[in-house]
Amino acid sequence: MAVNIYDDINKLESTFRSTEEFGKLKQAVEAVTADSDSSQLFKNFRDLQITLQQKQAQGEEITEEEMVSAQETAQAAQADPKILAMLEAEMGLSQIIDEVNRVLIKPVQSLYESM
Amino acid sequence: MAVNIYDDINKLESTFRSTEEFGKLKQAVEAVTADSDSSQLFKNFRDLQITLQQKQAQGEEITEEEMVSAQETAQAAQADPKILAMLEAEMGLSQIIDEVNRVLIKPVQSLYESM
Ligand SMILES: [Ca+2]
Ligand SMILES: [Ca+2]
Repeated sequence: MAVNIYDDINKLESTFRSTEEFGKLKQAVEAVTADSDSSQLFKNFRDLQITLQQKQAQGEEITEEEMVSAQETAQAAQADPKILAMLEAEMGLSQIIDEVNRVLIKPVQSLYESM
Repeated sequence: MAVNIYDDINKLESTFRSTEEFGKLKQAVEAVTADSDSSQLFKNFRDLQITLQQKQAQGEEITEEEMVSAQETAQAAQADPKILAMLEAEMGLSQIIDEVNRVLIKPVQSLYESM
């Protein structure tokens, strides 16, 4: 890997951390952390997601009961304005990362499309 | 999205296109394109991959015959030095893109780990 691309990656990371979206996520994480109800709701949501992802990764069956429980926990989390703000801020950052991927993959695809 | 992050993304894309890895892929694509045997082998490989991916996306069963055929086509493609060079160059570029993703996801993960 050419050394100078690291400079560009680090510059991008620095700008990424100074975006409005990143600031919003930081504030939202702080607001959730400061609220014991929101904090507990989010932990339930995250723990259940991790459990189900692990089951799926191990090829284990996910029961209908677990699916319903996951949906209910997700709905309860998203009904909390502090958690919702956090998830929305995270989505904003995901959109930036997706854009970076699109921009980098495009010239590679163009080479293959020339074939 | 803060406007100035586009400058960083575009700068990164420009450096990405000037990496040794991108130059290697460009040359490899040209070498494959210029060789009708390599070109045909690669097209067989790519067409079969796309067909199987579409089947999978539509939830259709992939037969053992198709799996064996896919493996044989992949092996034949990779046994061609020109195609192998192209796939290796592409892997080098994927590693750069993976690194960019890791660098950007890290500060987001750090925020969540603080919870
Ligand atoms: Ca509360
Ligand atoms: Ca030939």
